[in-house]
Amino acid sequence: MKTSDIGLVGLAVMGENLALNMAGHGYTVSLYNRHGEVVTRFVEGRGKGKGFIPTYSIAEFVATIARPRKIILMIKAGAPVDEMIAKLMPFLSPGDIIIDGGNSDFRDTERRMRKLESHHILYVGTGISGGEEGALHGPSIMPGGSPEAWPEVKNILQDIAAKLDDGTPCCQWIGKGGAGHFVKMVHNGIEYGDMQLIAEAYMLLKERLHLDNEQLHAVFDEWNKGELKSYLIEITAAIVNFRDNGNGYLLDKILDAAGQKGTGKWSVMEALEENDPLTLITESVYARMLSSLLEEREKASCLFLNEDEFPGTGIDAGSIGEALYASKLVSYTQGFSLLRRASLRYDWHLDFGTIAQIWRKGCIIRSVFLGKITEAYTEEPGLANLLFNRFFRSKILDSLASWRSVVADGVLSGVALPCMSSALSYFDGLRTLKSPANLIQAQRDYFGAHLYERTDKPRTEFFHTDWTGEGGDTTSRNYNA
Amino acid sequence: MKTSDIGLVGLAVMGENLALNMAGHGYTVSLYNRHGEVVTRFVEGRGKGKGFIPTYSIAEFVATIARPRKIILMIKAGAPVDEMIAKLMPFLSPGDIIIDGGNSDFRDTERRMRKLESHHILYVGTGISGGEEGALHGPSIMPGGSPEAWPEVKNILQDIAAKLDDGTPCCQWIGKGGAGHFVKMVHNGIEYGDMQLIAEAYMLLKERLHLDNEQLHAVFDEWNKGELKSYLIEITAAIVNFRDNGNGYLLDKILDAAGQKGTGKWSVMEALEENDPLTLITESVYARMLSSLLEEREKASCLFLNEDEFPGTGIDAGSIGEALYASKLVSYTQGFSLLRRASLRYDWHLDFGTIAQIWRKGCIIRSVFLGKITEAYTEEPGLANLLFNRFFRSKILDSLASWRSVVADGVLSGVALPCMSSALSYFDGLRTLKSPANLIQAQRDYFGAHLYERTDKPRTEFFHTDWTGEGGDTTSRNYNA
Repeated sequence: MKTSDIGLVGLAVMGENLALNMAGHGYTVSLYNRHGEVVTRFVEGRGKGKGFIPTYSIAEFVATIARPRKIILMIKAGAPVDEMIAKLMPFLSPGDIIIDGGNSDFRDTERRMRKLESHHILYVGTGISGGEEGALHGPSIMPGGSPEAWPEVKNILQDIAAKLDDGTPCCQWIGKGGAGHFVKMVHNGIEYGDMQLIAEAYMLLKERLHLDNEQLHAVFDEWNKGELKSYLIEITAAIVNFRDNGNGYLLDKILDAAGQKGTGKWSVMEALEENDPLTLITESVYARMLSSLLEEREKASCLFLNEDEFPGTGIDAGSIGEALYASKLVSYTQGFSLLRRASLRYDWHLDFGTIAQIWRKGCIIRSVFLGKITEAYTEEPGLANLLFNRFFRSKILDSLASWRSVVADGVLSGVALPCMSSALSYFDGLRTLKSPANLIQAQRDYFGAHLYERTDKPRTEFFHTDWTGEGGDTTSRNYNA
Repeated sequence: MKTSDIGLVGLAVMGENLALNMAGHGYTVSLYNRHGEVVTRFVEGRGKGKGFIPTYSIAEFVATIARPRKIILMIKAGAPVDEMIAKLMPFLSPGDIIIDGGNSDFRDTERRMRKLESHHILYVGTGISGGEEGALHGPSIMPGGSPEAWPEVKNILQDIAAKLDDGTPCCQWIGKGGAGHFVKMVHNGIEYGDMQLIAEAYMLLKERLHLDNEQLHAVFDEWNKGELKSYLIEITAAIVNFRDNGNGYLLDKILDAAGQKGTGKWSVMEALEENDPLTLITESVYARMLSSLLEEREKASCLFLNEDEFPGTGIDAGSIGEALYASKLVSYTQGFSLLRRASLRYDWHLDFGTIAQIWRKGCIIRSVFLGKITEAYTEEPGLANLLFNRFFRSKILDSLASWRSVVADGVLSGVALPCMSSALSYFDGLRTLKSPANLIQAQRDYFGAHLYERTDKPRTEFFHTDWTGEGGDTTSRNYNA
């Protein structure tokens, strides 16, 4: 019987294109989909003559794969992954490897790995980014899970991955357990932030500089030749002047209510868990939610007409580009800060420079900017905050005046810039030697006896003041029952 | 044997004061604490001669309470509550009532109520706010849980609650299941937002208007006579010029690293769950986290010295007060929006006007402002967004120029105003008829075939464009395996 190099379950857009990518690199791929007609349609259509093995039962599917079997699941995250694993298990042998290529919650990946390893099956949870087009031509791949699985899956994953100009594949082992899916989660969060920042720049160029779609194209196209060069800027340039069948521009007909599949929220939840101020990504997630409140927005637009024509702070496309760059830097600073905290907590030993390199090509957030991040971590692997890097510090200082001017222009003219302004708040909050949090600590001690520390005493000492003269000496610290 | 009206477990700051409050209203209270010496110390100290029944075992404790027993737990939320319930259960009789007065997760309350009801024990999960001082003199109380328990506990809870000037108690039945704890959670989130907003105003008054502590006191004291009148403004006035034993001002010696006990985060997590843009409270939670990164802040303050002296946009204490009011209104708008969504999802039938009234006195966020919210919901119970109310709309329009000017001043001078600026972003995002989310939808469809809707087609129709000319006809919509 003919055997395949790998089995792939799930022929939606990512699965189809990943299968075609594997076949293009000379791999034979067994295919299974819970609806058999999907398999047939694919192998008679886009997959025709490309050496796929169509199968129509789990037993047949597993039997066609060379041992140790590698089976990659390209199915919806959540319960479907557990269900598919349960269906596969009776047919697998010790040493076989299940690879989950979906957007799974890293905690599920941790759990599944432990469970499968107890049955001597290896598990890989891998982030795959690049969307439809990346999956086809070479995505960015972030594998984590059972370390013993890596040598087995390394060649095929690195073969199908995107390559840097020097041939380095955008696929390296991330770490044990759920590390790969955690890094993919942060990637997705950063993607939300990047997209919202570009949307804010687009809004400013359109509403404040009154550029038409062709002029918008020219600006984004220009940006894509410089330090903002990235996939998202590139496709934005292509989108802004894309014609609607010769009838105006398609972008102007697209409803301004953004959807989301939920992976952006996960980064926010993990940031809360880690006490990490991931403000920009959070605002980008909320901006999508707010955009989708169409009824409320319509009513508000009638009740709060913006009639004043604010003359502007004198911004131009150049200063908007600088504000975009500085804000983007804050977003990545926050994202890598979250990775750093998670790496310590879960003992993953993440290599931040390599992660930036993996994102350098193939994925949605690919950009020349990521090369600078790799350089920063190569220079100083223990860097506590990306803004402290020599190059990025000077970038911030160079663009600071423009950044402030652009955000102030939005504030004064009524253009919402949730991400650019929260990035600036974070920056100013970080570089403020004396924050007003002393007042918050005083308030908390005043009403809840929550204690405070003093600037003139060691940080191990806590104080409580009887502010009103009638509190007891019981503080919330000795809260017990 | 002498019997009590109610039993109370847990003699930390809130428990002690709540017990004293009950005794002050003529109730006899059985007391239990896992450390017996805490009970003894209390009844021989602050509780001396006040009709408490000290007990030193669960059996003794339960036996001293009149039936149907009411037992209120004032212990740490989480596992300790489950453990205490398990210890109490063997001694309880059908119809007895356990009341959890801690800051429990509303999901835990839902679960505990179902479990106890299956054993014919009634369960009340109640939010109690007011801190040390409120617990003693009359807190704001938000009970939810088993509806049959309400008539039994109503008198005692309303007796110990704060009262409005007309005698209305700040304690009404909120709803079944976890409704009470959910409302308390949102209360706490709003408290985080209020505190951060006041901190931002304090920062502006101090750094931008260069007020000294006595002048700060005068401003907050003045604000506390007008529409900003509230407990938090009142204590802020008392805090800013509180003397450090005659040696300068205490506030200036308090470390500016804010702590948190985690209940602020919960509101954020629920907002994400409900797709509700709770931006201001979220930024206030992050602001505390950022403040506590002392090492990073110190380094950043050296690398990014703020040397430019921005002349200012011409703000004064009056405009800062207006910005504070408008931002606070956005925060409550967002908080009540979250309540509205949760009420629909969990079928709680929350009465928003009554909730605002319960918060009107006794709790940390008590203010005259809440009276206006009650009025708004009385005028229009189905109000979709507080900003749509006639009164609040005119308040926003009146303060808008000041609000923009204050935020721009912070943006241009380098004073971080995460909450005031995110409030303004939300407002502008809400009242923008055309948001830039059309670009986000176009990008998502470009790289991930996520589909989009069109402004010239009904909202039931979804479209996909093959932007590059090489995508397949598979979209993420028919994602299956």
